[in-house]
Parts: sequence; structure tokens; C-alpha cells
Amino acid sequence: MNVYERSLQLHAKLRGKFEVRSLVEVKDRESLSLAYTPGVAQPCKEIAADPSAAYLYTRKWNTVAVVSDGSAVLGLGNIGGLAGLPVMEGKAVLFREFGGIDAIPIVLSGQDTDDIVKAVEMIAPSFGGINLEDIRAPKCFEVERRLKEKLDIPVFHDDQHGTAIVTSAALFNALKLADKKLEEVRIVICGAGSAGIAICKLLQESGAKHIVLTASRGIVCKGEPWLSPAQKEIAEVTNEAGLRGKLEDAVRGADVFIGVSAPNQLSKEMVRSMAPRAVVFAMANPEPEIYPQDALDAGAFVVGTGRSDFPNQINNVLAFPGVFRGALDVRAKDISEGMKVAAARALANLVGDDLSPEYVIPSAFDGRVASAVAAAVADAARREGLARV
Amino acid sequence: MNVYERSLQLHAKLRGKFEVRSLVEVKDRESLSLAYTPGVAQPCKEIAADPSAAYLYTRKWNTVAVVSDGSAVLGLGNIGGLAGLPVMEGKAVLFREFGGIDAIPIVLSGQDTDDIVKAVEMIAPSFGGINLEDIRAPKCFEVERRLKEKLDIPVFHDDQHGTAIVTSAALFNALKLADKKLEEVRIVICGAGSAGIAICKLLQESGAKHIVLTASRGIVCKGEPWLSPAQKEIAEVTNEAGLRGKLEDAVRGADVFIGVSAPNQLSKEMVRSMAPRAVVFAMANPEPEIYPQDALDAGAFVVGTGRSDFPNQINNVLAFPGVFRGALDVRAKDISEGMKVAAARALANLVGDDLSPEYVIPSAFDGRVASAVAAAVADAARREGLARV
Repeated sequence: MNVYERSLQLHAKLRGKFEVRSLVEVKDRESLSLAYTPGVAQPCKEIAADPSAAYLYTRKWNTVAVVSDGSAVLGLGNIGGLAGLPVMEGKAVLFREFGGIDAIPIVLSGQDTDDIVKAVEMIAPSFGGINLEDIRAPKCFEVERRLKEKLDIPVFHDDQHGTAIVTSAALFNALKLADKKLEEVRIVICGAGSAGIAICKLLQESGAKHIVLTASRGIVCKGEPWLSPAQKEIAEVTNEAGLRGKLEDAVRGADVFIGVSAPNQLSKEMVRSMAPRAVVFAMANPEPEIYPQDALDAGAFVVGTGRSDFPNQINNVLAFPGVFRGALDVRAKDISEGMKVAAARALANLVGDDLSPEYVIPSAFDGRVASAVAAAVADAARREGLARV
Repeated sequence: MNVYERSLQLHAKLRGKFEVRSLVEVKDRESLSLAYTPGVAQPCKEIAADPSAAYLYTRKWNTVAVVSDGSAVLGLGNIGGLAGLPVMEGKAVLFREFGGIDAIPIVLSGQDTDDIVKAVEMIAPSFGGINLEDIRAPKCFEVERRLKEKLDIPVFHDDQHGTAIVTSAALFNALKLADKKLEEVRIVICGAGSAGIAICKLLQESGAKHIVLTASRGIVCKGEPWLSPAQKEIAEVTNEAGLRGKLEDAVRGADVFIGVSAPNQLSKEMVRSMAPRAVVFAMANPEPEIYPQDALDAGAFVVGTGRSDFPNQINNVLAFPGVFRGALDVRAKDISEGMKVAAARALANLVGDDLSPEYVIPSAFDGRVASAVAAAVADAARREGLARV
């Protein structure tokens, strides 16, 4: 059986990958009167008097909603919320296993931006944070922006920011190996959707100065008539040379290729045209923009993918459990760019002296990851005044 | 320490009464690829092709949302969703402990009827059922009605129907002891809010013919100018004699008093005015409409309350875990009046030969309750064509 058949079999056996357990035994009148009526009136009164007491007397402090409208699930496209539920349950499993977080899968029946924002706003009091997942661009930008404005708990679209954090971490280490400076290198991001734009912004936040994005229609450049609103915005702060054309024009002489697009976009010829000691992160899933051996054969110095069967897997699970763990630990009001950069730097630093072209990013199963990321995120939240404790 | 202080201490120690556990260990690449990407794409595809497959591959089959806007929490009134969270977590604990159900507390930031309906509709795909809780009348009627129309999963406002089921069960047994027929007795329901109206409807569904409701302003009678829309509707099918006046006028000669109102509404004089072998269920919490000893002194034959420290506790926990267990087991589309009556009859039948004036309803800790109620509810759903399996 292949991985899909084995996975289906596992899902059929489990019938759901999570369960809700009670932390209190209700075995007699006394225990019922404490966990429920009449005793439960007291914590209710305390929270009515001071809403922050919800973090003391309920599970809010450790609970994250994993919310999706199913409009962009894995590579499957717009399959709807219900069909995306196995992914959201899987995410909840990873939140628990890697971050010790109580994550609740919430899949939505509607896909309208206003409806999504309103629904999440309505259910937000139950949660200490909101993880948005598998929501299509450009809708995901507006949903996240409006929820961040409205809510006083962290809102984090993992497809954007989880990817951006882990990619940044891998790039910090790859450039260290290549003895290049982030401020000086020329970076091409192939894929100008939500992940590509988020990677761009976070790398700029970390100091990158020379980034060019490419979409399927070509290089993202001010004035191109086909740019989406989000691409128009990013065109204002990238591609300062005003480069036009196709991917092959963008990568010529570039130091870094970051692919979040589609299979087989990057040819060996294009890799050969890059600068010496080039970094190639080909993260399209499951088929990368170029296979690692091809990139190495064409002269790439560090190669990473999104896959677990090649070195340097750039995997979101390295980020989101620790990011939310840290944010929850300090009851952060938000997850800022500074907190994301801190997460990326902490992740990069875990590699230490073992750094090599085959090891620029820790393994998903490195037990140090979540706590290191959490500590860095919590520290950054405190520094920025976003922590409540 | 009293029960409130002890409860607060327990809540401060636990910091939340539930947790989300993973049912799958993610310890290596293989397990990650099955629980999450890439393998998880397969159950997603199956559900996209056939939505009912969500019951096979996700936790939907066993998951209930406990939804509240906090507009009528216990006796505390409108304290808002967040402050009601300890109650909803307590309810989730009872769902797990008594019904083996994964219940998720969802407290809302808004209290507008349209917003509540829309939010619940949006998040419904994640769940196999919706338990509405502590929503103020008359809003609760419309919220429930509209959600029952829109959703293809059971929607159940426990404050109405849980109370109605358990009250009905206790009354069936009390009348058996008193050797009176439900069709013939005169019943007074003190309290014409959501619980009182739901009790009235379910007793009528079971065969009761002579019911009078009273509100704080007096007997609910067609034409009274102060009736709410819901009271107007119930006035059409109750109080066939056109009785007007106060509670004391209603209870004179009545066989049954059911109180879901406020402390000390029923005097000993009023009980003395009732028919022989009168049944008095004084369920205001925590202070009943009359204390049991006073009712007995005044000649009542069977007395029940909502409290655990007197005999015959009429407690919702006897109903909702079994009702949802049964509904989930057959993937019911709805919870009908017939399913509720079946639940009440099953609950009453558990008492059997031990039936006595001090024992008309099983204990909340009688281990047979949930499975007996579940079996009766599932059977009724099948009979009515509401079961999907």
C-alpha cells in the first residue's frame, strides 16, 4: 500500500485523530457541585468582574482554534471546509504533540470573507489564539488583517507565516555557510501568492534588500497590468531594478531561489545561471520546482525542499507549535513581525556547529525545537509590549 | 470553605476542565506522513467526493459543540459568553463523563440573534451535533428554530428540552404512584419562559390535556396584553378553561405543580388547595419555589427539586448525554419531539419496582441512565426516519 492508502486505513481505524478528555472526575454529588452547578457560578462571577480571569479558571490559556474554509487545502484546491477536516485534525494533533496545545479543528460552511471574519470573531472568546489554515489568496490577507484588528488574541495564518519563519531560518544558516550577507544577496521568490509574499516580508523584516518575486505570468514589477492588489503592494517594495520578464530572467545571477509554486519550474540551466554558492529551496509539494540532485548537479551549494525524504526539509511544523506555545505562555495580544523573526533566528541557532549544506534546518523531530522557538517568541512579545504576563 | 470557594479553588488548580488529546502518535516521518501530509490528502478526497465519509474519517461522528452567548447563565443572568465559559466547560465534562462524547465549549462574543445563527451555521461542519446553552428567552426559540431548519445535524437547547425530558420522566412515575392519568390531570407550570414552555409542549406530546402556565404577571391566558410572542402561541393550546388571575388561582384543585421560576413562589396554603395526592416539582435553583418539607407538611404526595441534597433531583444531566449519544450513534438529522418523549419514557422506566414518593427519578450517578436513554432515542430516530445509519 502507498502512503495514501495507508493513511486512509489509519483514518478509518481511528475515526478522528483527537478526543476531548475531562480533567475532572464527576463521580458523586460533591464533585458535580464543584465542576458544575452550583459551584461553577463562582469562576463565572470572577470572569464577569475581570475578563482576564478567564485565563486562570478556564482552558482559554492553552486553546487554539484551527480555522479553515477549505478553499485551498494542500494541493487539492477548493474542496470546502468539511473535506478539509482531516487536515485540521492533523494540525490539531501536531499542536498537541509538538506544542502541548489544545487545538480545536473548526471547519466552515461558508467561504465569504465577511462571513469568515464574523464567525471567527463570534467564537473567539473560547480561545487563546486563532490559527488560520488553507484559506485561498487573496482572501487570506483580508481575513487575517481584519481579524488581527478586531481580536485581542494572536491570529496567525500558518500557510503564510509558518512557511516564512522556517524558510527564513533555513536561509540564515545557508547564507552563513555560503559566507554571504542577507542584506547583500539577490533573492528570487518563485510564487507570488500568500506564502511567497509572506516570505518576502519576513526576509525584509530580517534585513534583506534585494528581492524579486515571480508569478506564473512573469516577474512581479510595478506597472504590470496583471498584478493582484497584494502583488501591487509588494511590487512597491521589491524589484528595485525594475526587472521584467520571466523566471529565467530573474534567477540569472541571483544568490537565492525560493520556490513556493509548482513542479519543475526551475531548470538545471537556470541554476547554472545563478551566482556561485547558490541556495535553492524548492518547496512545491509533493513535486518540487527542481529535484535536489538536479540542483546540486547544476552547481547549487545548499538545497532544501518541503519533503521529508530529502535533506533540509522546510516544514511548518518547525514553527507553529512553538510560535503559539510562546504566544500563549505570555498571553500575547498579537503575533508581530518581530516575534516571527525571533522564531526564525531561534530555529536557525539550534543547528549550531553541525551546520553543513545538508543540515541548515533542524529536523521536525528535534525535541528542542518547540521550546526554543517558544522562548524566543515569548521574549520578543515582552520586548515589544505585546505580552500580558 | 463553602461550595463556591471550593469550586473556585478547583478551577484555579485545573485551569480548565478539559483537554484535547491526540489519538495518534507522531514520532517519525512515517507517522507524520500518515496523520498529516501527504497521506491526509486521501481522506480529504474521499470526503470531497462523498460528504458522509466525514463520519468515517474524522471525529465529526462523536463531536458536539456546546454553544452559548452567555445571556442567561445559571441564575447569574446576562454575564456574556466569556464569563459563561466555566459552565460550558463543565457541560463538556458531563458530555464526556456521562455520554462518552467529545464536546467543545464555544462561547460567543455577540448576542444578536442573526449573528448567533450565522456563527453556528458557519462552524457546524466540524460537529455531529449542536447543544445550545444558557441563551435567554425569547431569543433561544428563534435561534433554535432557525438552526434546526438550516442544519442537517441535531440542534438541542438543553435548558428547554433537557429540563422537559427529565421533568416528564419524573411526572410519569409520580402519576403512576398517585394512580392518575397524564391525560386527565390538571397541571400548573409556574414560569412561562423557555423551560416552562418546553415542558408544556413535551407533556402535551406525551398526552397531557389540561395545562395552565403562569408568569410573574399572572396566569397565561389568551388575550392578556402582556404576553410575549412565545406565550401568546402557548396560550392558544393551554388553559382551555380561560382561567385568569394569579398562581394561587391556577393551583387551586390542580394535581401537579411544576416550578421553573423563582424562590418561594408556592406557599403551604397553595399546596393545601391542590387536589389529593398532589405532585410538586419545585425546580428553581438554588432556592426552590417551596422547600420539600413544607410541601410535604402541606399534604403534597410526591415532591422533587433541582437540588442534589433532597430526594427526586430533576437534573438535566439525566437527559442530554444520552440524548446526544443516541442521536450521534444513528447520525440523526434532528432531535424530534418523539425522540424526547422516548428519552423521558426510558428514563422513567429505569426506576422500576423501587418506585416510591422519594424515588420517582433515577440518580444522576445511576450508571444505566445514559445508555438506556441513548438506545430509546436511537430507536425513535429510526422509527421516524431521522436516522442515517
